[in-house]
Amino acid sequence: MEFASFLTSLGTSFIIFVILMLLFTWLSGKPGNHEIYFPNRILKGMEPSSRTRNPISWIKEAISSSENDIIAVSGVDTAVYFVFLSTAFSMMVLAGIVLLPSLLPLSITDHSVRQNNTTSNGTFSELDKFSMGHIEAYKHVSEIRATALMSSEVRAEQFAVLVRDIPPPLEGETRKEQVNSYFKAIYPDTFYRSMVVTDNTKVNKMWEELEGYRKQLVRAETVYAQSKTIDKPEGIRPMNRIGFLGLCGKNVDTIEYCNEKINELISKMETEQKVTLRDKQLSSALVFFSSRVAAASAAQNLHARMRDTWTVEDAPEPRQLIWSNLSLQFYMREVRKYVVYITVALMVVFYMIPITMISAFTTLGKLVKLMPFIKPVVDIAPIRTVLEAYLPQLALIIFLALLPKLLMFLTKLEGIPSESHAVRAASGKYFYFIVFNVFIGVTLGGTLFGNFKDLEKAGFTKIIDLLGKGLPDNATFFLTYVALKFFVGYGLELSRLIPLIIFHLKKKYLCKTEAEVKEAWAPGDFGYATRVPSDLLILTITLCYSVIAPLILPFGAVYFGLGWLVLRNQALKVYVPSFESYGRMWPHMHARFLAALVLYQVTMIGYFGLKLFYFTPLLFPLLITSLIFAVVCKKKFYGFFQHAALDVVCHELKESPNVERVYRSFVPPSLSSDKLDGDHYGDA
Amino acid sequence: MEFASFLTSLGTSFIIFVILMLLFTWLSGKPGNHEIYFPNRILKGMEPSSRTRNPISWIKEAISSSENDIIAVSGVDTAVYFVFLSTAFSMMVLAGIVLLPSLLPLSITDHSVRQNNTTSNGTFSELDKFSMGHIEAYKHVSEIRATALMSSEVRAEQFAVLVRDIPPPLEGETRKEQVNSYFKAIYPDTFYRSMVVTDNTKVNKMWEELEGYRKQLVRAETVYAQSKTIDKPEGIRPMNRIGFLGLCGKNVDTIEYCNEKINELISKMETEQKVTLRDKQLSSALVFFSSRVAAASAAQNLHARMRDTWTVEDAPEPRQLIWSNLSLQFYMREVRKYVVYITVALMVVFYMIPITMISAFTTLGKLVKLMPFIKPVVDIAPIRTVLEAYLPQLALIIFLALLPKLLMFLTKLEGIPSESHAVRAASGKYFYFIVFNVFIGVTLGGTLFGNFKDLEKAGFTKIIDLLGKGLPDNATFFLTYVALKFFVGYGLELSRLIPLIIFHLKKKYLCKTEAEVKEAWAPGDFGYATRVPSDLLILTITLCYSVIAPLILPFGAVYFGLGWLVLRNQALKVYVPSFESYGRMWPHMHARFLAALVLYQVTMIGYFGLKLFYFTPLLFPLLITSLIFAVVCKKKFYGFFQHAALDVVCHELKESPNVERVYRSFVPPSLSSDKLDGDHYGDA
Repeated sequence: MEFASFLTSLGTSFIIFVILMLLFTWLSGKPGNHEIYFPNRILKGMEPSSRTRNPISWIKEAISSSENDIIAVSGVDTAVYFVFLSTAFSMMVLAGIVLLPSLLPLSITDHSVRQNNTTSNGTFSELDKFSMGHIEAYKHVSEIRATALMSSEVRAEQFAVLVRDIPPPLEGETRKEQVNSYFKAIYPDTFYRSMVVTDNTKVNKMWEELEGYRKQLVRAETVYAQSKTIDKPEGIRPMNRIGFLGLCGKNVDTIEYCNEKINELISKMETEQKVTLRDKQLSSALVFFSSRVAAASAAQNLHARMRDTWTVEDAPEPRQLIWSNLSLQFYMREVRKYVVYITVALMVVFYMIPITMISAFTTLGKLVKLMPFIKPVVDIAPIRTVLEAYLPQLALIIFLALLPKLLMFLTKLEGIPSESHAVRAASGKYFYFIVFNVFIGVTLGGTLFGNFKDLEKAGFTKIIDLLGKGLPDNATFFLTYVALKFFVGYGLELSRLIPLIIFHLKKKYLCKTEAEVKEAWAPGDFGYATRVPSDLLILTITLCYSVIAPLILPFGAVYFGLGWLVLRNQALKVYVPSFESYGRMWPHMHARFLAALVLYQVTMIGYFGLKLFYFTPLLFPLLITSLIFAVVCKKKFYGFFQHAALDVVCHELKESPNVERVYRSFVPPSLSSDKLDGDHYGDA
Repeated sequence: MEFASFLTSLGTSFIIFVILMLLFTWLSGKPGNHEIYFPNRILKGMEPSSRTRNPISWIKEAISSSENDIIAVSGVDTAVYFVFLSTAFSMMVLAGIVLLPSLLPLSITDHSVRQNNTTSNGTFSELDKFSMGHIEAYKHVSEIRATALMSSEVRAEQFAVLVRDIPPPLEGETRKEQVNSYFKAIYPDTFYRSMVVTDNTKVNKMWEELEGYRKQLVRAETVYAQSKTIDKPEGIRPMNRIGFLGLCGKNVDTIEYCNEKINELISKMETEQKVTLRDKQLSSALVFFSSRVAAASAAQNLHARMRDTWTVEDAPEPRQLIWSNLSLQFYMREVRKYVVYITVALMVVFYMIPITMISAFTTLGKLVKLMPFIKPVVDIAPIRTVLEAYLPQLALIIFLALLPKLLMFLTKLEGIPSESHAVRAASGKYFYFIVFNVFIGVTLGGTLFGNFKDLEKAGFTKIIDLLGKGLPDNATFFLTYVALKFFVGYGLELSRLIPLIIFHLKKKYLCKTEAEVKEAWAPGDFGYATRVPSDLLILTITLCYSVIAPLILPFGAVYFGLGWLVLRNQALKVYVPSFESYGRMWPHMHARFLAALVLYQVTMIGYFGLKLFYFTPLLFPLLITSLIFAVVCKKKFYGFFQHAALDVVCHELKESPNVERVYRSFVPPSLSSDKLDGDHYGDA
């Protein structure tokens, strides 16, 4: 790729970004779009729009918002994510200030690196400052987590533990009795009650069906009410066919039919609920305690002699429980875990083959050869330039978009009991995937394929030389990639063009009832499972390539700075988190952050070594320091992100907790009915 | 070494064993030796000797004793050790029955191993049975441990936890207040009281001095009383010089002098005790709970946000606390741990050099060349044969005898808080040491040095061939080694010749008082730090060499069978355990047992692969099975050996525990004085 096409790409990206921002300013001012630009505020019952029509007022608001605002509006996980963004940003800026003046001239004039020993030594101590910043960041996140956990408000999950792998009950004993007597013996004072997990497949299905009919009924009633015009005060009663997809079968009055079906289903469901609670008890349970300390302590203790029975762990929030996974047996979970790991490892390795081929072969010339009919379009000069600049990146992005859902599906197969844990696990897998395939794949693949003919002539002994020559090309590729990510990515993020269009289409043609409209603008959450690994990829790319192409550092800084700004706005106004894990994503991010730093140092050693820089050995202590630092961080801080420390949760509550309400919040909707009261449920 | 010298060595060993056994029968019958042969029974207040004078009555007693007898007399750790011995024994017997008929003829005729595929396949399933035996053994040990932990008797250590890394107290707050308020907040109902660890160096020294004078006083009084004969009813008052070693200085009346010194020291010590308790408080404490569940739970919980503060772990028994290690800081312990690990690793590797030289050069011929003056002795034919048979092994044994104390010293430097843990850690180090140096060192070293000239000629490409040729020689070496270990080792163990001689000498010439005599026959404990690794070495050697020299299997069986028998006798009658860790040595032994098994399978694969046995690949699944088995064992059982399971300790006690007495049992003798009562101590 030539420098001209790089500049074109950069320019286009910037123009797109400016257009998107202007669009955002214009669109977000219109009251009809408030559900798209301020859903989080609307759901929280706040005034949707800001008062002024100043186009940059959102920037002001984002910058002036404090961490506590974020925690209040979007939770601890989001606040922790911003700590990550700001740490990454400040690291980029610091690295840019230190490295650019010393490395950029070198890289441009391509002289030997030998002269800059003093500067480099200066760099080392600066690099140590990065680490210090990290410790501060970790401590800070730990404090945020502690503050949230010691909050004086009652949070359901702090009073419960999840018990899995319960052995078969004794003859003549129900599961419930078994669990109660077991925990009463160990916690005579603090045990409150238990909820045995049941196989809810059938009752869930009925409940979904029931909800469907209820929605249909509301919709039919709305349609009917709207049809009552002044001309036709009796209205038109909506009708539908009850056969396949409403296309065939008997034609019935929808309102009557739905009412009938609902009544029928309610009585059937009540029977099924009783059957479920009585006969479908599984080998796991939720156990409730009357104090937070008791629950936090129980989740950390070994209860039975064998690790594969009576496994106790922290209960997640009710909303993020993955019910179908709760009763998987210990060895089943272990086996599934390893099977999934192996599958993902194979995927990571073998997805690389098509990816490297794409990055090597998706050039415009080859594409035209394959599809001659696109030639007329391509021949237009500006389109050609744009396509040439973006094609490989676009191919890459589309290719990667297929992946996250597959990884999340595989992760949930492991038997993980909570959504937040599944998100973390999927995020880890995705990170390995993109680092291996995008970063390593493109670096190696692009270089090797681009020089494939040279390679055949020269033999594999010259691979190293080729890699050395090929690297700056890849650097341009990644510069474009990062720029595309932040200008177009964050532009789209802020302007929310696609959700806006979909919302308006749905509102106009599909939605009849209030509930349907609300569903149409539901903003969703941050999607950490792909957002975090993408950021980490950018971090890794930026750091590693900064050694040979220091110009990438400002791009990295803009990525994280702009990201912070745009996402701050989205956190305050748009996204609604779907779970709260009290910052448990942090150790995950931090470990990979450090891994990127280590990779950066290794790259530096390798590159300086290649250039025969005399002071390269001085970098080894730095590398060792980084590794020791990683170990110390893990030892010192990680425990608290696994479990709740007792001196944190022993803080007093505002009021004595209503554990019965806590208990009720865990009852799944398909099992909580008006007729089946709690006692009935619990003691069935 | 020729076959003749091997037989001579075997014969001599056997004769020595028979002589030692006869000596044991004769000596143990004499009432004057009862303190040596029955100290454990005497200390437990039981009848020392058995009734009959039957020379094999001890064998009957050993065989008929049940596991519960062992637990009652010698504790859980000893019972667990016997589980290990019997598992090893039954494995040897089983392997012998399966392997000998199939492998022995092959090994003798040295034909290719190709024919025995069916037999080998039979072997695989038998080998699986070993594993099954292991699971049973692990379960059994886990049950022994559970039974002991759920005992209805009050054991002090079950009510206490050890707290380390306490952060500095607030201004105006004592350590005691800090610890009390911290634990009262978390455990309002079950916290009993705390004992802050103090720097006892000075007070301990005073106490030792005091004890010294007290002993001297008793001795002087005894001497004085004995001197009052009928002829001289006034007796001779003992005198001593108070200068260096009692050789110079003023001559004083010992009784008066000691009394004076004792009174002086008591008052000085009282002052020092107060100073210690008030001003020498360190950053660790023992915390006492009123229930076992609370203590067991506290030991497993994370208490503070940072792992490096308020570290809580199970308290060991009072008698096995290593006080000087309790207050080492977290990072200090980590650093020391790694420093010790690296030191030991270097020792393991570099001790090998002298060892291999010894096993290569300590032949009689070379010794005579070095020391010509021993030639006349060596020329006597029987002596020559015996020396030739034993010399390398003796050199090895002497060389190894220097090591354990050094390893224990290094281990204690790590900051380990309890004796039993230190024993386990030292045992692990010793195991690596002897496996690396004795097993691998002799196998490689003996072969390489023995053929050093060939090696120089042939170049290093032929090393593999040499090793193949050299192995059978080493097998003979190890056969002799094992035989020496069990015949002479267990013969000496049973006859206790050396302790007997030392005891009688001391009794006759040194001991004056009852206490001194008692000290002279104190039997000591089993010494697991060296005993367990030695057994594990024999196990490893026997299993690995059984592939090429199956004759070693009966030797292994005899080693463990005879060991079981002799040590059963010693456990019932002689050794007094110095601590009780409720079988925490087991996972340590089991892991190395499995490692030996894996090494055995690897050897088999290597050896069969060398012989081009077609069905060698069939062994790989076996190896993988072993590894999975090891992982499952660790996952399933290990947790309970780290911590007490709560459903075990929640069993009810016979009586409500007197926690004050528990507390008092932890007060070190140098700090518990008649005048300083408990409250005074605790709240100083």
